[in-house]
Amino acid sequence: MVKELITKIQKTNAPIVVGLDPMLSYIPAGLKEKAFAEFGETLEGAAEAVWQFNKAIVDAVYDLIPAVKPQIAMYEQFGIPGLIVFKRTVDYCKEKGLVVIGDIKRGDIGSTSEAYAVGHLGRVSVGSQSYYPFDEDFITVNPYFGSDGVNPFAKVCKEENKGLFLLVKTSNPSSGEFQDRLIDGRPLYEIVAQKVVEWGADCMDGDYSNIGAVVGATYPEMGKTLRKLMPKSFILVPGYGAQGGKAADLVHYFNADGLGAIVNSSRGIIAAYKQEVYQRFGEANFADASRQAVIDMREDIASALAGK
Amino acid sequence: MVKELITKIQKTNAPIVVGLDPMLSYIPAGLKEKAFAEFGETLEGAAEAVWQFNKAIVDAVYDLIPAVKPQIAMYEQFGIPGLIVFKRTVDYCKEKGLVVIGDIKRGDIGSTSEAYAVGHLGRVSVGSQSYYPFDEDFITVNPYFGSDGVNPFAKVCKEENKGLFLLVKTSNPSSGEFQDRLIDGRPLYEIVAQKVVEWGADCMDGDYSNIGAVVGATYPEMGKTLRKLMPKSFILVPGYGAQGGKAADLVHYFNADGLGAIVNSSRGIIAAYKQEVYQRFGEANFADASRQAVIDMREDIASALAGK
Repeated sequence: MVKELITKIQKTNAPIVVGLDPMLSYIPAGLKEKAFAEFGETLEGAAEAVWQFNKAIVDAVYDLIPAVKPQIAMYEQFGIPGLIVFKRTVDYCKEKGLVVIGDIKRGDIGSTSEAYAVGHLGRVSVGSQSYYPFDEDFITVNPYFGSDGVNPFAKVCKEENKGLFLLVKTSNPSSGEFQDRLIDGRPLYEIVAQKVVEWGADCMDGDYSNIGAVVGATYPEMGKTLRKLMPKSFILVPGYGAQGGKAADLVHYFNADGLGAIVNSSRGIIAAYKQEVYQRFGEANFADASRQAVIDMREDIASALAGK
Repeated sequence: MVKELITKIQKTNAPIVVGLDPMLSYIPAGLKEKAFAEFGETLEGAAEAVWQFNKAIVDAVYDLIPAVKPQIAMYEQFGIPGLIVFKRTVDYCKEKGLVVIGDIKRGDIGSTSEAYAVGHLGRVSVGSQSYYPFDEDFITVNPYFGSDGVNPFAKVCKEENKGLFLLVKTSNPSSGEFQDRLIDGRPLYEIVAQKVVEWGADCMDGDYSNIGAVVGATYPEMGKTLRKLMPKSFILVPGYGAQGGKAADLVHYFNADGLGAIVNSSRGIIAAYKQEVYQRFGEANFADASRQAVIDMREDIASALAGK
């Protein structure tokens, strides 16, 4: 699956993933009103607004990008109607030729991880039949349980040609509370990175492994070290833009081949119309603002990489 | 919420939580056949079998126990129909007067944790309305993100009188890969435990905090240390029974007041009819076998505690 992701990155010349993390506050009033008029101010109404918002953005940007990353929490907060729209979004993005990274951050003991793995990446058996319940291409996974919590995900990745991004160093301000603590002189995130390399060795798909890592854009020095520690792991980089990560900081997340990283932007793209720089589009043309924001982000990263 | 849990534990004299983690392989053939006859060998058919299985077990044991712990992965693996049955199970158990611990192990950066928190414990706003999408009483949370990933959950707990169990030391064989690594001479799980105490201090509900911890029954020596480190944190103890944890090992998870821990059993209760010792009930009476297994577990723990 990472091979497919790389092909799409090369085709679009955009190591970019758009985070489909729709908060209701991002959605233009007109679109919400229409959804509420049809379904009421209900979970179904919220889900409909999210769906229409997502669809407009995907339609406006799909030809420019290789991948999207829906954050399941933003759907799960609207209960079952929200999760139905999560699935609808996954399906729609795949129809549009996009790689879908389900940002689900699941992780548990072995038998439970297995259930998440078949539910999100693989097939679940029901009698003599089997089904792909959510069918994302990649998912994010929390490694706190160690190998036997990760192995069931890796197994399904091998069977189905799917991929993982394991949390190594997260982008949030307090990520260091545990992740930076020193163990034999090395921070925990490096210990986790070493395991990512180990787990990934058995899941190669071309030059890179189907088991990658999450490393926040907000910690560029750590990103530099982690890039070297995990040469064959693709790095999913959240935290660009709204969270404070700059393109100049991102160059060290890439390998010499110009590959090895994919940078996420959520709010900066999907709520672009709220930024002063894109105000000219107006609320009604929010999706055009998102398209322009993708083009600008691509430029921003390309020029940083060119100057590397 | 922990006060309510304690009241129910004292009333039933059973510091026991039944893990509603229904794998299809646990469900009697007759029950599955009936569900498949109605809905086909589909995700809906699987979900219906799970629901009928859960309902029979809850009906058979609800008067004996204070709480249940549905593991959401076992529902999520069946996609949307599975998640509908997760919600139905939560609602049904609450109607029966049980405390519901949603074993969801979510956790993310702040704004995303907030979405999970309102989705599972609190209320989500839609226009002028608000809804409780899943409405569990407690949930399990992964602490890898540190304080700003946990705070949004704690905030909702305070607003809604709900509770958390944070993963401190998990029951699986490889949990030590990261959790046992030494930081300034102390294992990571103790560092996490200290933060649980800190987070919990602000969420007291009577003698205990609404922010508790998960500590596996399979590591009794660590449980003993962690009990002392977190005197006001309720401990959710998985790993009893099928995973190898014994009642004699569990006594140190309790405080001198006889409280402070609640022991989970999943497979050992819900698939009791498959064990030799309960074979006499027969597959058709699987729920009666579960009831007997709860009675035996209560006895087992009570006699271990009496001999403490």
